[in-house]
Amino acid sequence: MTPSDSVETALERGRREINAVLDEEVPVVPPESLYRAARHLLDAGGKRLRPTILLLSAEALADVDPGSRDYRTFPTADGGHIDLLSAAVSIEIIQSFTLIHDDIMDDDDLRRGVPAVHREFDLSTAILAGDTLYAAAFEKMLATGARPERTVRALSALARTCTEICEGQSFDIEFEKRATVTSEEYLDMVELKTAVLFAAAASLPATILGHDEAVDPLYGYGIDVGCAFQIQDDLLDLTTPTEKLGKQRGSDLVEGKRTLVTVHAREQGVDVENLVDSDSVDSVTEAEIDAAVDRLESAGSIEYARERANDLIVRGTGRLDALPDNEARSLLEGIGEYLVEREY
Amino acid sequence: MTPSDSVETALERGRREINAVLDEEVPVVPPESLYRAARHLLDAGGKRLRPTILLLSAEALADVDPGSRDYRTFPTADGGHIDLLSAAVSIEIIQSFTLIHDDIMDDDDLRRGVPAVHREFDLSTAILAGDTLYAAAFEKMLATGARPERTVRALSALARTCTEICEGQSFDIEFEKRATVTSEEYLDMVELKTAVLFAAAASLPATILGHDEAVDPLYGYGIDVGCAFQIQDDLLDLTTPTEKLGKQRGSDLVEGKRTLVTVHAREQGVDVENLVDSDSVDSVTEAEIDAAVDRLESAGSIEYARERANDLIVRGTGRLDALPDNEARSLLEGIGEYLVEREY
Repeated sequence: MTPSDSVETALERGRREINAVLDEEVPVVPPESLYRAARHLLDAGGKRLRPTILLLSAEALADVDPGSRDYRTFPTADGGHIDLLSAAVSIEIIQSFTLIHDDIMDDDDLRRGVPAVHREFDLSTAILAGDTLYAAAFEKMLATGARPERTVRALSALARTCTEICEGQSFDIEFEKRATVTSEEYLDMVELKTAVLFAAAASLPATILGHDEAVDPLYGYGIDVGCAFQIQDDLLDLTTPTEKLGKQRGSDLVEGKRTLVTVHAREQGVDVENLVDSDSVDSVTEAEIDAAVDRLESAGSIEYARERANDLIVRGTGRLDALPDNEARSLLEGIGEYLVEREY
Repeated sequence: MTPSDSVETALERGRREINAVLDEEVPVVPPESLYRAARHLLDAGGKRLRPTILLLSAEALADVDPGSRDYRTFPTADGGHIDLLSAAVSIEIIQSFTLIHDDIMDDDDLRRGVPAVHREFDLSTAILAGDTLYAAAFEKMLATGARPERTVRALSALARTCTEICEGQSFDIEFEKRATVTSEEYLDMVELKTAVLFAAAASLPATILGHDEAVDPLYGYGIDVGCAFQIQDDLLDLTTPTEKLGKQRGSDLVEGKRTLVTVHAREQGVDVENLVDSDSVDSVTEAEIDAAVDRLESAGSIEYARERANDLIVRGTGRLDALPDNEARSLLEGIGEYLVEREY
C-alpha cells in the first residue's frame, strides 16, 4: 500500500460513509419540493472532503485505526460515546447550503455536473432550500449527544464559521468591483470564504470529543489546507484540460474572476483584464488560454501560487505534530498534500 | 391606567428596549456593505412584537414587575442570572432574516416604508445579509449565559423553528399553484410560516430560565396568538384604509394571495379569482375593492376569519393560566387581544 493509495482509500471510505447516511439524515418529507431541492446537490455527489477530514481528525485524536470504530458511537476523551456522523453530516450540509446560495449570487448554471438548484427548481425554492439546510446543519451538530457544554462550544464555532463564510463571500463580491486587491487581502478573503469550514471540520472533533488541547492546532491545520485547496482550485482552472475539469479551462480568466495567480500577475504589472479577448466561455479558444497562461507563467505568477499553496500545506500539516502519531494523523497529512497535488 | 393603555405602554417599552441595543448587538463592521444591508430592515423600525413577548414571558415566569429588572442580568429559576436581551434580539434577528429572504421570493419592493433589501442593495447582498443574520441569531441565543443544557435545548428549539418557517414558506408558495386549499391546510401553513416564531419567543424564556413546566403552555400561547396575528393581517388588508395601511387596501386580492378569508369564500362557492378585475395594485379602484369585500362579507368569510382569530386568542390566552397570576401575564393576555383588535 503506497501512501497515495492510502489517502485515496481514506477519501473513498469517508465519501461512502457520508453518502450512506444522507437519505436518513436529510429525508425528503413534506413539503417535498423543498426537500428535493435541499437534497439536489447533496445527491449529485462531491468528494465529501470536509466531513472526511472531520472523521479522520476524530480518529487521530481518539488514537484508533481509521475506519475501525462505529461512527455512531464514537469514543470521547472521558470514556463516553457520541454520534460523530451527525457532526460530519452537519459540515457537509453547511457546504451544500453555501453552494446553493453562491450559485444564485454568481448566476452559475452548473454544479457537480447537474443544473444549479435555482436552475433545476427556481430562485425562491433555491433560497429556501439553502435556508432549510442551514437550520438542518445546526440540528445535526446539536444531535451528536456530546456533553451540553461541548455542544454549546461546537455550536458557537459553527455559527461563527457561517458568519465568516458570509463575510468572505461579501469581500469576494466587493473585490470584483475594486481596482486593486493585494495578495494578502485575497488570501484573507479565501480564509473566510473557504478555509474556515475546513478549520471547523478539522477542529470540531476536538471540541465535541473533549480533546481541548487539540482545538487550536487542528483549526490552524484546516485554515492552511483550506487556503491551499482554494489556490489549487485557481491553478487547476488554468492548467487542467477542459474535458478533465468538467468546465472550460481558463473560465476564471474569461469571467474576470480574481485568483491568487491574477492578483499576483497584476502586482507584476500584467494587464490581467485583457489576457483573453473573449468575454464568453463559449467563444474562447484553447490558443487564447494557452497564450494567457504563458504570460502568467512568464510573470512568475503560477509558480508563486504553487509555492504559496505548498508552503501552506507544509505549515498546516506541521501543526498536526500536536496530535498522537498514528495512521489517521498521517492520512490528514496526506490529504493536505493530496489537495495541492490533485489534478481535478 | 386602563388595560389598553397598559398594553400599549408595555409594547412601547419593549420596542424601546430592543431599539436601544441593536447598534451594539449587530454592529456595522467590515465588510460594511454586508452589515449595512443586514441592518437595513432592523433600522427601519417595526413593532418588535416577538421580542417584547419574550421579555414579558420571562417577567411573568420570574414573577417580577414588567420593566423592573435589568434584562442583561435577569433572574433564573435557580437564583442565577442571564442576559435575556440577547435572547430577545435573537428572535428579532430571525424575523428580520426571514423578511429579507421573503421579500426576494415575493419580489416585494417595499418593507416597513423603505425599499426591500434586494432593492436598496442587490440580490446577492440581500441573500448574504439574510444568511449573516441567520448565524447572528444563533450566536445571540448562545450568548445568554444560560446553563449549557438549557442553551442546547434553546438552540434546538431555535433551529427547529427556522426549519418550520422555511417549510411554511414553501407550503405557501406551493399553495399558490394549487387549485384548492382547505381552511385547515391554510392554518397549518400559517402555523409554520408565522406562528412558530411567536411560539419560540413566548416559550424560550421558560427554557433558558429553567421554568420547564411552562414551556408547553407558552409555546401553545405563541402558536395561537401567532395564527390569530396572521388572520388579522389578512383582514386588515381588506378593511383598513389604504393611507393607514401603508399599501393599497385589497392588494392580497389583486395579487391573488391566499388568505383565510378567500380560502373560506372559495369553500362557499365564491369565484375568488375574479373578485377584482384589475391585476395590478396601481390600477385597482376603491370601488372594485369595496364590491369584492361586500361579496366576501355576504359569503360570511370575513365574519368566519374574525371568529377564528378571536377563538384562537381565547384559547391562547387561556393557556397562560399555567403561569403565576401577575401583571406581566395580564399584559401577555392583553397583547393577544391587541393583536386581533389592532387596526394596522
